[in-house]
Amino acid sequence: MQTTKRSERCIRIGQVGTGVMALAHSIAYSNIPQIFNGGIRIQKKIIADKTNELAKSGAERLGYEKWTNRWEEVVESEEVDVVDICTPNDLHMPIALASAKNGKHIICEKPLALTAQESKSMYDAVKDGHVKHCVAFNYRMTPAVLEAKKIIETGTLGEIFHFRGSYLQDFAIDKQFPLVWRFKSNIAGTGSLGDIGSHIIDYARFLVGEPIAVVANNKTFIKERPIQSANRNQAPKTGTVDVDDAVSILMQFSSGAMGTIEASRFYHGRKNQLSFEISGSKGSVYFDWERRNELQFYSSEVSQGHRGFTKIITGPDNPYGGILWPIPGLGMSYIETTNVLLHQFILGVLENRQTEPNFYDGFKTAVIMDAVLVSDKERKWIEIGSH
Amino acid sequence: MQTTKRSERCIRIGQVGTGVMALAHSIAYSNIPQIFNGGIRIQKKIIADKTNELAKSGAERLGYEKWTNRWEEVVESEEVDVVDICTPNDLHMPIALASAKNGKHIICEKPLALTAQESKSMYDAVKDGHVKHCVAFNYRMTPAVLEAKKIIETGTLGEIFHFRGSYLQDFAIDKQFPLVWRFKSNIAGTGSLGDIGSHIIDYARFLVGEPIAVVANNKTFIKERPIQSANRNQAPKTGTVDVDDAVSILMQFSSGAMGTIEASRFYHGRKNQLSFEISGSKGSVYFDWERRNELQFYSSEVSQGHRGFTKIITGPDNPYGGILWPIPGLGMSYIETTNVLLHQFILGVLENRQTEPNFYDGFKTAVIMDAVLVSDKERKWIEIGSH
Amino acid sequence: MQTTKRSERCIRIGQVGTGVMALAHSIAYSNIPQIFNGGIRIQKKIIADKTNELAKSGAERLGYEKWTNRWEEVVESEEVDVVDICTPNDLHMPIALASAKNGKHIICEKPLALTAQESKSMYDAVKDGHVKHCVAFNYRMTPAVLEAKKIIETGTLGEIFHFRGSYLQDFAIDKQFPLVWRFKSNIAGTGSLGDIGSHIIDYARFLVGEPIAVVANNKTFIKERPIQSANRNQAPKTGTVDVDDAVSILMQFSSGAMGTIEASRFYHGRKNQLSFEISGSKGSVYFDWERRNELQFYSSEVSQGHRGFTKIITGPDNPYGGILWPIPGLGMSYIETTNVLLHQFILGVLENRQTEPNFYDGFKTAVIMDAVLVSDKERKWIEIGSH
Amino acid sequence: MQTTKRSERCIRIGQVGTGVMALAHSIAYSNIPQIFNGGIRIQKKIIADKTNELAKSGAERLGYEKWTNRWEEVVESEEVDVVDICTPNDLHMPIALASAKNGKHIICEKPLALTAQESKSMYDAVKDGHVKHCVAFNYRMTPAVLEAKKIIETGTLGEIFHFRGSYLQDFAIDKQFPLVWRFKSNIAGTGSLGDIGSHIIDYARFLVGEPIAVVANNKTFIKERPIQSANRNQAPKTGTVDVDDAVSILMQFSSGAMGTIEASRFYHGRKNQLSFEISGSKGSVYFDWERRNELQFYSSEVSQGHRGFTKIITGPDNPYGGILWPIPGLGMSYIETTNVLLHQFILGVLENRQTEPNFYDGFKTAVIMDAVLVSDKERKWIEIGSH
Repeated sequence: MQTTKRSERCIRIGQVGTGVMALAHSIAYSNIPQIFNGGIRIQKKIIADKTNELAKSGAERLGYEKWTNRWEEVVESEEVDVVDICTPNDLHMPIALASAKNGKHIICEKPLALTAQESKSMYDAVKDGHVKHCVAFNYRMTPAVLEAKKIIETGTLGEIFHFRGSYLQDFAIDKQFPLVWRFKSNIAGTGSLGDIGSHIIDYARFLVGEPIAVVANNKTFIKERPIQSANRNQAPKTGTVDVDDAVSILMQFSSGAMGTIEASRFYHGRKNQLSFEISGSKGSVYFDWERRNELQFYSSEVSQGHRGFTKIITGPDNPYGGILWPIPGLGMSYIETTNVLLHQFILGVLENRQTEPNFYDGFKTAVIMDAVLVSDKERKWIEIGSH
Repeated sequence: MQTTKRSERCIRIGQVGTGVMALAHSIAYSNIPQIFNGGIRIQKKIIADKTNELAKSGAERLGYEKWTNRWEEVVESEEVDVVDICTPNDLHMPIALASAKNGKHIICEKPLALTAQESKSMYDAVKDGHVKHCVAFNYRMTPAVLEAKKIIETGTLGEIFHFRGSYLQDFAIDKQFPLVWRFKSNIAGTGSLGDIGSHIIDYARFLVGEPIAVVANNKTFIKERPIQSANRNQAPKTGTVDVDDAVSILMQFSSGAMGTIEASRFYHGRKNQLSFEISGSKGSVYFDWERRNELQFYSSEVSQGHRGFTKIITGPDNPYGGILWPIPGLGMSYIETTNVLLHQFILGVLENRQTEPNFYDGFKTAVIMDAVLVSDKERKWIEIGSH
Repeated sequence: MQTTKRSERCIRIGQVGTGVMALAHSIAYSNIPQIFNGGIRIQKKIIADKTNELAKSGAERLGYEKWTNRWEEVVESEEVDVVDICTPNDLHMPIALASAKNGKHIICEKPLALTAQESKSMYDAVKDGHVKHCVAFNYRMTPAVLEAKKIIETGTLGEIFHFRGSYLQDFAIDKQFPLVWRFKSNIAGTGSLGDIGSHIIDYARFLVGEPIAVVANNKTFIKERPIQSANRNQAPKTGTVDVDDAVSILMQFSSGAMGTIEASRFYHGRKNQLSFEISGSKGSVYFDWERRNELQFYSSEVSQGHRGFTKIITGPDNPYGGILWPIPGLGMSYIETTNVLLHQFILGVLENRQTEPNFYDGFKTAVIMDAVLVSDKERKWIEIGSH
Repeated sequence: MQTTKRSERCIRIGQVGTGVMALAHSIAYSNIPQIFNGGIRIQKKIIADKTNELAKSGAERLGYEKWTNRWEEVVESEEVDVVDICTPNDLHMPIALASAKNGKHIICEKPLALTAQESKSMYDAVKDGHVKHCVAFNYRMTPAVLEAKKIIETGTLGEIFHFRGSYLQDFAIDKQFPLVWRFKSNIAGTGSLGDIGSHIIDYARFLVGEPIAVVANNKTFIKERPIQSANRNQAPKTGTVDVDDAVSILMQFSSGAMGTIEASRFYHGRKNQLSFEISGSKGSVYFDWERRNELQFYSSEVSQGHRGFTKIITGPDNPYGGILWPIPGLGMSYIETTNVLLHQFILGVLENRQTEPNFYDGFKTAVIMDAVLVSDKERKWIEIGSH
């Protein structure tokens, strides 16, 4: 029996946040070396949350060596190479600015910040600090979506006419769903627009290119929600929702393509329907995250009578489709997209390459979201400047 | 052996046009007495088309007793009770006005006319003439759609948040597809907007109610098309497409609901995808004409863990679902919706009742379509007046 | 205005039965001349049913010129060219034998008769009588199924490995569903086997070829059912179901392919799921009548990474797919398959050609069904002789 | 900053094998403590494979502390609590017997062994050794399948009439696919029957209960396959496939239900279609692993006109559906089922409880598979004894 030697090629993570996204990222850090056979070692060094209880239990559960209730200790630690920001949105900017200043590479959850201006300052900071940066638009890393990207880039769809995208959920229809931070503009920035709409706007840019103008209609269907209280004997107080519940957008792309986008937490029965259809002069693709292992592809070059949408079950023949499982049909879930995103970024850090999606993508998405807010207020089309 | 006596309860049809819609209506006239057991007799009396050849062959094929190349003879004939207008759009108004003046009941294909103003004059004429009128929004008469209507009207979906509708086809992507009348504004009025968009706008009104404002983005992707020529040795000439190929619309309903609508002949792979999703505070419905025998219904009143979209295969337990076939799953096609629409209207004529959809619906749809055109030109929201 | 001349090319129908199948056939007789532009005229001459009431109301509703309560008058009438048998199964043989003897061409509903032996005598009779014959396996005439046939015949699927077919319904699960003739062997022959299983066995033969052996497991889940009584004050009596409710079959084809077949009226939620999947060395096809306008086609000759089942929405580019409707997606229902079947047969009669499916197909199916019954009883594989 | 204390509640794993299943299990060992918040620590202690190269690289990649090329060292090690057998099938028995003798708890991949007799000896050994045992029927641990189990156990489907199950793949259609061990009976036992059929037979037992008889038809479509050779300059040799490529089975359950089962590697386009439909007197369920986050559920207790299959997207309201992800629609993949299976077993070990599925299930499945082989050879029904 022999003792195993551990890889010297090592990255040390400082995690901020212990919620669901921190869980996903931490699992990915465990999985990556086992899946991607590249001799990478990832050390979960420090984890922070706002209370000692949260930080300590997060560390025990997720396997970090140390914990703290001050994120400043993470970004300043000499034991940390990469700071991974999984906090509510309002902390993204301060943590990222401090990390960049300390020369830490940065992974940041989406949306990048509360506004385009904040996002711009973050993008400037990582450029100034010469650090690598990643915004967690993990949904790009779905094999079906990457296959769609390949199909479009090789001209297989021809000239693009239409992009129709939506990200629909239904949890907020429940009036008793409490006033969590996602319903407050000072913490979340926007509502469904930033929380889920940012992903579909990212898809639009990733797959069809930059939009030049938008017109939007936003709604807040439930304007007061109960505030969660520690004291269950008190009558529940309510507070005001000051962000959007649903957004619908018409988009004009620089390429001439037309777009429609919806983001809503008020579509009953749609649990996580992040979907798009892209139609061009030679064919179409359709994707729905609820059936994330499938890409629907239509080609007009198939012989007459045999044309139709082909349901490709993604697998080893598609980008990243062979991760973990050697045959199609064993499936991807959320975690596999995170595995790919973080693996690719960490490899970039080790090899001194800047990968995508990064803070530029986070910033551009923020500019479009700002235009959506203005359009809704002014009831007209708003042009998107080039940056 | 006995000789059969024929019903005295008889309606005599004068058909104008011999194309696909005339075929559908004529088949319906043969089918209705056999399917709907009400002792109605329908006589196919006269058929007209612009040439003798077309009129004669139409009469022989479709079973009309007489034929003519002058529609005026149809609207003036004493042998005709109902004039059925299946011509290109520009003839709808003159034929309808003359029919109403002669006291004929009228069935008119959609869109009702070239503009809201024309449509208004037709609606005024049938009121003045005290005749019954029908606009052929036959897609309403799908059991799945009528079931959706019932579900909404009984409050089963609660307050409506979202309407998303589209009518997508792909035949016009082919650059060699000729410049038929559907691509010319002087004959068709509009392009995909009136041809197919009118059906989905009718669904919006039928199911969610009147819109109060729209903003739209219209496109003509292929601006020149070949002109069909009798002489195949000549180089084909081309002519200008002066109508829309695709339209995308944001809609605001008077009820507070948000809407998005697309009509396009440029969605590769979508052959006749007339679809809608309506989501409310208690549930949702989804329908797609390409799977027209199915209604997807989501109710939030089902117990937790068992909720989801239920695929109802329509049949005898749904409105008109037992027509012809005694079990679900034997299916409806286009003709069955026409059977229902025309049967209901003829019954209305016999029983002196005005049925829906009628010229008022055709007119209201025209008002919305006019607003879409203005919005696209002026790049802003346009309010829909009440009429 | 001119009076229309009627075609001289005429076929006169004598219908026996006034139920649902008689309705479908009668509608087809009205539709065929309008749809298939061949100058055919079809006269609905006489209709018979066992009582004067049924026959008279059938004639009025379905448009036959005369009626009678004796089917013998139909088969003997000089005014009849084609006898169309839409009665319960036990009358198929006597009516067919008499028709053949009188030189009438015959359309007969499926299953052809109560047993293989009866079916053989019918097949012999039409050969002896030199009349044209048709068994109403109308489901063959679905464009998607005919496209599958073409795909197989051109070798596109390669060597066939698997046939999996089923015809599933659920109406008989209801214990209160009465003891109609379909549950009695003396009238129906068999239960789900002959009523619906015959269609899927016909598909197996049509698409994959002759089977050489079967092993089967049959069940009668509900053994007593209420007898419908005219006197509603009496306590309902019950009677014994002596046919199968469900059948499952393993099949060995002469080509080497393997088959599994199920026919059942006890599959909750399956309303009319007549489906098959055929897999070969180069590809597969899948069809489900509940989505009858779609053929799922998989080809291994598509490039790696883009393979998958293609959902072909049948239309003008598929066999008979342009019937009535010029674009895919307008849909077929049960009636369109009847239109095609009867049109093709009548054309054969006029042009002195014997078409398929015919009494030979009805007889071969009966031989397989007899083997299924024997196998279930003897609990072993039964070989199918060649005939 | 504080240093994290590690849990005292610890299990030490000895892994045998470094292939795809070892990868899946090893990832699960990393994920379980992070996902299931129970303070469990799992140590990856030793890993073995047949060569030093495989063992060493497996250890480095998968994170085991030590490695060896002798599995005997794993089963004898005092540092190991659980032996996890992920080898080809022929090694399952010897490793399991030795592990049980040494008092190690055992996880064994499926099928349990080459024959029912071998499986029996393994089941006897774990009982004698008083160790906990698990057979890796991980597909049971899918939330949709567990929800189906709940629905059946609570009587929601009523009396079960039908089970139709299949596990279909297509990789073996390629004639150039080499003669790997899965095609040799001395290593694999059987072909598709044991490799994939065992999972669907396990589903049948798990969901409907024990079968009492089977009749089967097995085929080997490709009888010679190329042998992979290290020397690429040599002409490839071929060897004989002596196991089944495809199996079709009729099954009779003790409850009275009928079953049909197919397992095949020759269904083009089916990549990993492990599916079942179960129909009873009150409803049905349908599941397909290719859409593993969905359970289709039909209840006859829904009001008329609203019945249909409901597509439940599994999530927190279903068994284990909230693992990792707090909302439905984020999805499960293969790894999540392994996480659940191994977590549950390890918890059982720690709490001295025997969990399911275990060696008894592996043994019973082996008995059924033996009967399938005998039935295919003797061409008749074979009864399954009770054990």
